[in-house]
Parts: sequence; structure tokens; C-alpha cells
Amino acid sequence: MEEFNILSLLIILAGAWVGGTTAKRLGYPPILGELVIGIILGPAILGLLETSEMISVLAEVGIILLMVYIGIEINFRDLGKASWPGLLAAIGGFIVPFGMGYYTIKYFGGTDLAALFVAIAVGVTSLATKSRILVDLKLLNTRIAYVLMAGALISDTLALVIFAGMLSFVDVGSIDALGLIWVAGKALLFFAFTALAGYFLLPVLGKFLSENKIKNRTFHFTLILIIVFGFCELAELAGLHSILGAFMAGLFIRDGVFNRQISKEINDIFHDISIGFLAPIFFVSAGFHVTLEVFQTDLLLLTTIVLVAMVGKIVGTAVFYLPSGFGWREGITVGTGMNGRGAVEIIIAGIGLEMGIISAEIFSILVFMAIFTTLSVPLLLTWTTNWLRKRGELIHQESRTGILILGANPLGLYLGKHLRDQDEVTFVDSNRDLVEEAKRQGFESFYGNILKEETLETAKAYEKGTFIALTGNNEINLLAAQLAHDAFFIPQNIVLFAPQEGGAGVELLDKIKASSMFASKTELAPWIFKIRAGDIEEQTEKVEKLITTRKWVKQHQLGADKILPLLIMDPEENKRPFHYHDEIQPGEKVIYLR
Amino acid sequence: MEEFNILSLLIILAGAWVGGTTAKRLGYPPILGELVIGIILGPAILGLLETSEMISVLAEVGIILLMVYIGIEINFRDLGKASWPGLLAAIGGFIVPFGMGYYTIKYFGGTDLAALFVAIAVGVTSLATKSRILVDLKLLNTRIAYVLMAGALISDTLALVIFAGMLSFVDVGSIDALGLIWVAGKALLFFAFTALAGYFLLPVLGKFLSENKIKNRTFHFTLILIIVFGFCELAELAGLHSILGAFMAGLFIRDGVFNRQISKEINDIFHDISIGFLAPIFFVSAGFHVTLEVFQTDLLLLTTIVLVAMVGKIVGTAVFYLPSGFGWREGITVGTGMNGRGAVEIIIAGIGLEMGIISAEIFSILVFMAIFTTLSVPLLLTWTTNWLRKRGELIHQESRTGILILGANPLGLYLGKHLRDQDEVTFVDSNRDLVEEAKRQGFESFYGNILKEETLETAKAYEKGTFIALTGNNEINLLAAQLAHDAFFIPQNIVLFAPQEGGAGVELLDKIKASSMFASKTELAPWIFKIRAGDIEEQTEKVEKLITTRKWVKQHQLGADKILPLLIMDPEENKRPFHYHDEIQPGEKVIYLR
Repeated sequence: MEEFNILSLLIILAGAWVGGTTAKRLGYPPILGELVIGIILGPAILGLLETSEMISVLAEVGIILLMVYIGIEINFRDLGKASWPGLLAAIGGFIVPFGMGYYTIKYFGGTDLAALFVAIAVGVTSLATKSRILVDLKLLNTRIAYVLMAGALISDTLALVIFAGMLSFVDVGSIDALGLIWVAGKALLFFAFTALAGYFLLPVLGKFLSENKIKNRTFHFTLILIIVFGFCELAELAGLHSILGAFMAGLFIRDGVFNRQISKEINDIFHDISIGFLAPIFFVSAGFHVTLEVFQTDLLLLTTIVLVAMVGKIVGTAVFYLPSGFGWREGITVGTGMNGRGAVEIIIAGIGLEMGIISAEIFSILVFMAIFTTLSVPLLLTWTTNWLRKRGELIHQESRTGILILGANPLGLYLGKHLRDQDEVTFVDSNRDLVEEAKRQGFESFYGNILKEETLETAKAYEKGTFIALTGNNEINLLAAQLAHDAFFIPQNIVLFAPQEGGAGVELLDKIKASSMFASKTELAPWIFKIRAGDIEEQTEKVEKLITTRKWVKQHQLGADKILPLLIMDPEENKRPFHYHDEIQPGEKVIYLR
Repeated sequence: MEEFNILSLLIILAGAWVGGTTAKRLGYPPILGELVIGIILGPAILGLLETSEMISVLAEVGIILLMVYIGIEINFRDLGKASWPGLLAAIGGFIVPFGMGYYTIKYFGGTDLAALFVAIAVGVTSLATKSRILVDLKLLNTRIAYVLMAGALISDTLALVIFAGMLSFVDVGSIDALGLIWVAGKALLFFAFTALAGYFLLPVLGKFLSENKIKNRTFHFTLILIIVFGFCELAELAGLHSILGAFMAGLFIRDGVFNRQISKEINDIFHDISIGFLAPIFFVSAGFHVTLEVFQTDLLLLTTIVLVAMVGKIVGTAVFYLPSGFGWREGITVGTGMNGRGAVEIIIAGIGLEMGIISAEIFSILVFMAIFTTLSVPLLLTWTTNWLRKRGELIHQESRTGILILGANPLGLYLGKHLRDQDEVTFVDSNRDLVEEAKRQGFESFYGNILKEETLETAKAYEKGTFIALTGNNEINLLAAQLAHDAFFIPQNIVLFAPQEGGAGVELLDKIKASSMFASKTELAPWIFKIRAGDIEEQTEKVEKLITTRKWVKQHQLGADKILPLLIMDPEENKRPFHYHDEIQPGEKVIYLR
């Protein structure tokens, strides 16, 4: 254990933390800061640190766990729903830079294998969708975000599959046809076996565990680690790289294989060990292999690769995007959004360096390419989205759709009737009569204990975009929203919050990122009574300048609960529930009851 | 990364999992199974695996994270309350085997340092309190459990401090007085600095984070890792071992330094990474260094050390325990409970081997000693407790005391009046009038929103042994019990469960290990009304043979809610709430209302 150097580990972690946090503050993904810190601390600049066996081991475990996490985050159901435009963008954004990257390296005299590694590195897309940029640019509910998400998912999977195919042939050299078939067959066998095992055996295991009431998180975690390393070993036996095994394992760990609560906690653990501990060691130490001399010795190649990466990605995406019929401008916008390179690129480049396929110079160029392309994303995407927005071509679309309403009471039904104009509305209630009434009114409607996962599962909570809890009981509303958020990842959770004494606090509301319906504490009973009695009048009011929902409520609700702001309608007549964390744009209308 | 061998990692993890799970099934701590698996897989028997740089690195990170977790689990507040008998047991149980171990090695011709290492290894105590054995033997609520817990805590801390003192002098050899003072000074400086930083700086940091609303778990986790490795580096600078830094860091991470919910989640992560992933790599690989030849070459030394460890620990504990006045029989029982050796011993032995202070033979002997002593615990402890039980000398005592009742309504107060005979009862309510009424009746009583951590913190929930939620609202009862369980680790949570429609399910009850009050669904309002009207009659019924509370209710509640079983009283007149997960022993009485 002579190699074990606490100090270097400490410096790497602290550096990664400072770099990552700074990058995040500036609106960039943490990996950017980690790479830069690595370059600064490593031999390239300060020479404080260099790579060691200890760092390599931890970094290797880090990327394995990171690939598991990346796999977990890719939801098959989402992949299945991946739209035609997303597929087009992903393919165009991969193939064009891939081809250009390959020929660039060949032109500069590189080997076929080196050219293929660079081509893949240039082709991949980092999940810019996860970065704050989409939130900052208010893009989350646009078609662009939806395409970006689908595109990035496909792109990552595509890149890894091609990478796998390539790896199979790395050691081959010149062998006969039979040998080639054997090599390709092994790789295919790996994917077939892991996919079948993941699809059929894992759920059996999960069922076995849950039937035997085994709910120990650590037990599950260790078991999953064993599956992960088992898949890694299979990948290596098939002549591939362990990260592919980790990725395949991650793909199948999600989605109700194990108890949802445990799955959620285990995702968190994979997230924190990889992103909070071991993966940064990999990215910082990637910076140790970078040499700044490429700016002198290989400036032309560096510039060419960065240009190829950016132009190839943006133009490739835009051209392939044309058949979608959404226009070349949206194509370019999607291209700028997919222009970042991240974890997967650096991991592939690192493997190429380690296998001796690419030189330290090429590796350095690929790291700088990752840095420059990632830096470009917020800049370019801000331009392009503003451009679209000004032209009125920024199209609204949810990436998860459908509204799940808890509480099929008259107010809930009233709201549902409005919302079903543009989105599927589903009701859940624990009162059979109310459920029947909702069905009579043409809503999909389920009876069940809302605080049971099964009920939410039956109501397909896992694919809904919005959850609204409208019972008269604050605690039930909050508990249900917590379940919707924690176990079903529903992005928007809105709860009715009644002015009760001793009720659950606003803290819980914040923690699960829920917002309160009507943007104020509202008593349910009187409004239900009014609606039942037909004693309501629906009115709309157009808003002239930007105002928060809270302010609107303050301006209108003088004292008593005289009016109930129910929905906001934009000029395209898209309606959304009126809730606390929202603002009303000029030209939008508030629909309220009085 | 040539060293990175997925297959060996996979075998180690799978082996550790099989070994650990088997050990647990048999009622032993998992570490026992991990050591045995390591011996079987390693050079000693099968020769499938041997140690490598990769394994060493991961094992080293594993023990650092494990020491953090051990530190986190030691609660200063508990240490402060550590009883006089616990202190006696810890000191006796450490010093006597320590001295005997030292002289054994000296007698067999070992060096001073080797003798000291063995002495410490023989002296430490593993936290047998955490093992299932106390639950199996129904010891959790006895004075023995309380003494064992306090004793084990002190013992671990004592062992690590002495280990630190010893380490300081390892490299010293023969230097002058000034040098000695410098060496000792550095070690003291380390403890002083880390204690002061932990006590004063960490809370400032935690306050800063919470004031700036930084609630990102991963951010906290990375920050804590940086602190941990910082402390490790300080320990090494002070001439100590990194595990001492990790332990000191862990000691200060608990206890409201950071947001309680985040602390809880981070504890879980440390638990899972160490116990579920990296620490088993250390324990399995410890088995790789074991040689079976000691059974032939050093059988006498092996036997002597095992005997010294067992006799020294049990007799030492019993003798030093005498001044407690609890008798030599209880002392011997405590000694058999403290006889296990675990993580800390193997870690210290591993460090000794790595530093070249003890030989592979001595290391093997220490591993076997750990295995044999740990194996002895359930056997010996079963004998000794049965012995005490038969003599009627098994004294009941809670390790966490005090009852916190949510809901100062008449039924709550009625229950409180009974329970305060033997335990402190505290009330919390969100109704000021009820809080005042409870105060008038002489109870400690707090007003506040029960679902806020602050309220429970003010009511000192962190030191209570029992939490009873008695409001008429199922959801509030459940949410509060969840908070009590998750954030304040209250061991016994009992909630009133009213027969409401659509309420939170029994699942949540199970998940937070809560039990339902009165052992049945009970409507609160009618009983409150009866108590207020004075329209109740308290009766007792003696139970003749063992019966579960559920059965008792079934036998007595013919149809309507005519009687309310409130408490169970044992022959010593100790009362406990009547709840679902309990059984009534022959001779105990049920106190019920009608």
C-alpha cells in the first residue's frame, strides 16, 4: 500500500469540488471544471500531481459506477417513445462529425484505429439536457428540450454500441473471416445475453426479493454491485471494455425491477459515489495526461478537430433534422444544444490513450475539444433560442405528458375538464363514488389508496408530467406528492395547501419541489359546495405585463376567498394550472372562479 | 491500469456477500463470514485469489470510510451519558486482556512493539450490541444491553487512543527526551486540533450551508469526504495513521451539524459504500494474508492468545465490574457480550502486518482469534443470560429513555399519567390550550408544528426511547413517526391508527418500524369524550399464559369499541404502552378502559 497517498487524493477531491462548483455556478457541467482543474494541477501547468496506481484504480471504479449511473438514467420507456425528430437529430449529429473526424485524422496521417477513436469522440453528445442551461433559458417545456433529451439518449447508446463494435476488432489485426465472425459473434452474444438477463432474470430476482420481504438497502446495493461487476467481466470476456457491461447493467436496474423506494435510494448512492467521489478522480486525472504543447506543435490539428466537432455536429444535426419538417432553424438550435462533449467522450478517449491507440497529443486535443465545445453550448444555445423565440418559432411541448389528479371531487373534475383540452387527464381517488363520477365524465379514473405505490403505478404515474393533489387533507396531498416525486419522478407536483393548523410544513413542499395550487392557502370545501350548487361564474383576465402568480393573487384577493384563480392560458390557448411557482407572461389570461 | 482485474473484484464481492449473508443468517456479524471466505478463497486454502495493488487501494479506502462510519455511529451525547458500570466494564475488559496479551507475546519472544499490537488487538471489543443476538435473546431493554453499548463505545475509543499513542512511538526507536516530547506533542496536537475543528468549525460550516439554503446531498457528501481526507492527512502529518483522522472526522459529522435529513442520507451512503462495497474487500483480503500453518507451527501461541483473549476479557470485565454493585454474575454476562473482536481489531492487525511490526503468523493468529471469540459470543451470551434470567437477575433498563407523546389530548394525558411513574413523559401539541393543560398537570410540554424538525429537536427527541403519536389524524401520526424514526432514530414508535378511509397505509407503518397503539384501529374522539365526561372505568386483567396483544384484543373486543387496552404492566409494575407488535408475558397485567 505504499502507493496510497492521502494527500494527492485530498488535493484531487478538493480541486474537483472547487472546479466543479465553479463550473456549475457559471452554468456549465461540473466535468468541465474538473478537467480544467486537472490540467492546472497536473504536469501540464503546476505539476503538483501526477497519475499513480492508486488514482488509476479509483478512477477506473469511478467510471464503472458512472456508466452504471448513466445507464440507470436512460429510461427504456423514454427511449421507446423517442420521437422521430430526436432520432434524426441523434443520427445526423453523430454520423456527420464521426465521418469528418475520421477523415481528418486519416488526412493528418493517423492510423485507422486512432481515426475511429477520434471519430467516436467527436460524434458523441453530452447530456446537455441535464445542465442548468435548459432551465435558465426556460426551454424545459419546449419541443427543443424534448428532441434534445431523446437525441442525447440515442446518441449515447449509439456511440457506445459503435464503440463496442470497434473494440471487438482492435486486437484482431489481420485474421481470417472465421476469426472475424467469432469476434463479432462474441460481442453480439454479450449484448444478447446481458439484454436477456436484464430483461428476464433481473425482474425475477426483484420479485423474489420483494416476495421474501427483503427490503434491506445495503443488501440490494451489494447485490447490484455484483451484477454490475459480473456484466463488466462478461464484457471483457467478449473482448469489449468493462464500461459497456456497467452501462448494460445500469440500463436494466431501473423501472420497477426492485422495490421503487429502494431503487431510488440506490440510484442516489450510485450518483453520489460516482459523481460525488470517484468519477471526479477520473476527470481530474484525465487532465494529468494533457499537454499544453499541442497548442504549438499541433495547433492546426487542434483547430481542425474543434471545428470539425462543432460544425459537423451542428450542420449534421440540422441537415438530418430537415425531414422532421420542423425547419432548419430548429435543427440548428438542436445542433447547438447537442454540441457539448462530456463524460462518455473523455472515458472513450481515456481508453484509447490507455490502450496506446491514440497518442498523448491526440488525447490532449480531445480534452480541449470537450472543453471548447462544452463552453460553446450556453453561448450558442442562447443565441439560437432567442432567434427562434423572436421569430415565434419556439414550440411548446412537454417531454412527459399527462396530468394525474388526486381527488375526483367537483373542483378536481372542473379543473380536469379544462385541462383535458390539451393533455390526457387521469384521476385517482379513494372514494368509489367519485371515481365512478369521473368515469362517467369520460376521464380515465382509478380507485385506490393513493399512498400506495401500486395505485400510482396502475395510474401510470411513471409517465405523467404533472401531478396535482387536490384532497382536502394537506398531509395526504403532501405524502402523495412526495411519492409522485420520489418514486415516480414526476417533474411537476402541485398540491392544494389548506390553511390548517399543525399541518405539514412548507419545508416538505420545498423539499419535493412541489408548488401550491391556486398560489395561496385555499379551503377546499366552500368551493366544492359552490361548484355543486352551480353557484360559480368563470371569468378570464388578460395580463398586460409579466407578473408572478403570487403577486396576481395579492392584487386580486382582497381579504376573503372571493375568487379562485384556476388556470393560466397562453395566447395559443394552452392551459396550465395556476400555482405558486409560476409567472404569467404578457398576453396570457388567468381563468378564475368567483 | 494493468492491475485492474474485474474478475477478482467480482469474486471478492460475491464471496463477501455470500459469506456475510450466511454469517448474518446464523446470527453472526457479516465480518466473520467475510474473513472466513477470504481464508477459503485466498492462498491459505483454494488459492483462487491473492492480494494486488488494486485490492489494497480499494481496501484502504474501504477502511477509511468504515472508520468514518464507526465514528458517525458513536454519539457523543451517548458517550457523555455512559454509565459508571459501562465505564468499569470497558476499562476492565480492555486493560486485563491488554496486559495479558502483551506479556504472552513477550514470553514467546516477540518485540515490544509486536507485543503492544497484539495487546491492543486482544483488548478491543466489537460492537456486539449491533448484532442480532441482543434482539434474539430479548436483551434490548435490559441493563446488560445498556452497559454493553456504553462499554463498547468507550472500548473502541480507548483502543484507538492507545493505538494512536503507540503509533507515535513506532518510528522513534531511541531518541532523546526532546524528540519524545515532539512526537507526543504532535499526536496531542492532532487530537486537539481535530476536536476543536470538529466542535467549533464544522457547526459554523453547517450553519453557513443551511443559511444559504444549500441542501444538495451530493455537495454535502463531497464536502464531507474532503474533510475526512483532510483529517486523514493531518493524522499522517502527526505521525499517526489515517484511520484515526477518519474516525475523528466521523465523530463530529453527526449531531445536527448539517441538516438532519441530509446527515441521515449521508450516513446511509457511508454505510453502504463501506459496509456494502469497500470494507468487505478489506476483510476478505485480510483472509488472503492468513496461513493455516499456524495450527501446526504455532499451535501453542494460537491457543494461548485465544484463551488470553477470552479469559482476559470475561474475567477482566467481571472483576472491574464489581464496584458497580451489580454482582459478578452480571459482570461475567457483560464480559461474554464484549468478547467479540471485529472491524477495529482486524484493521489494527492489518496495519501492524503492513508496517512489518507483526509477522504473517501473528497476523493469522489474530484473525483466528477474531473468528473464535466472535463465534463464542452467541453461545456464551445465551448461557449467561439464561443463567441470569433463571435467577431473576436480568434487570430491565432502557438505553434511551423518555417518552415523547404527540397529542396532549385527554387520552394522551391519561396515558402520560400512567407512564410517568417510571419514565419521563414529554408532550408536544400544536394546540396551545392543550399544551398549557399538560403543563398544569406537571408534564414537560412543548407547543409547535410537530412536522418540523425544530419542534422535535426542542422536545429533545434525539434522546427519547419511545415516541407515541396520538392525534386523531392518521397522516400526521405517520409523518411524525417517520420523522422521529428517520431523523431522530427513536427506537420505538407507536402511532394511533384510526379506521379512516383513504389514509396512509400499513406499509409506511412497517417501513418506519412503527407499531399501532391499542393494537387495533381505534377512533380517538369517543374515548376523549368519555374521559372528559369521567365516564370511564379503569380495570386490570392478569394474563396467565403468553399471548400476543393482537390475540388479546381479539379475545376481548367483541364487536364494538367497548374496551380500550392502554398499558401492559409487568410484575415489577413497569408499564408499557399496549401496542400491536408486543406480547404479554404470563403474570403481566393489561390495564384497560371501559
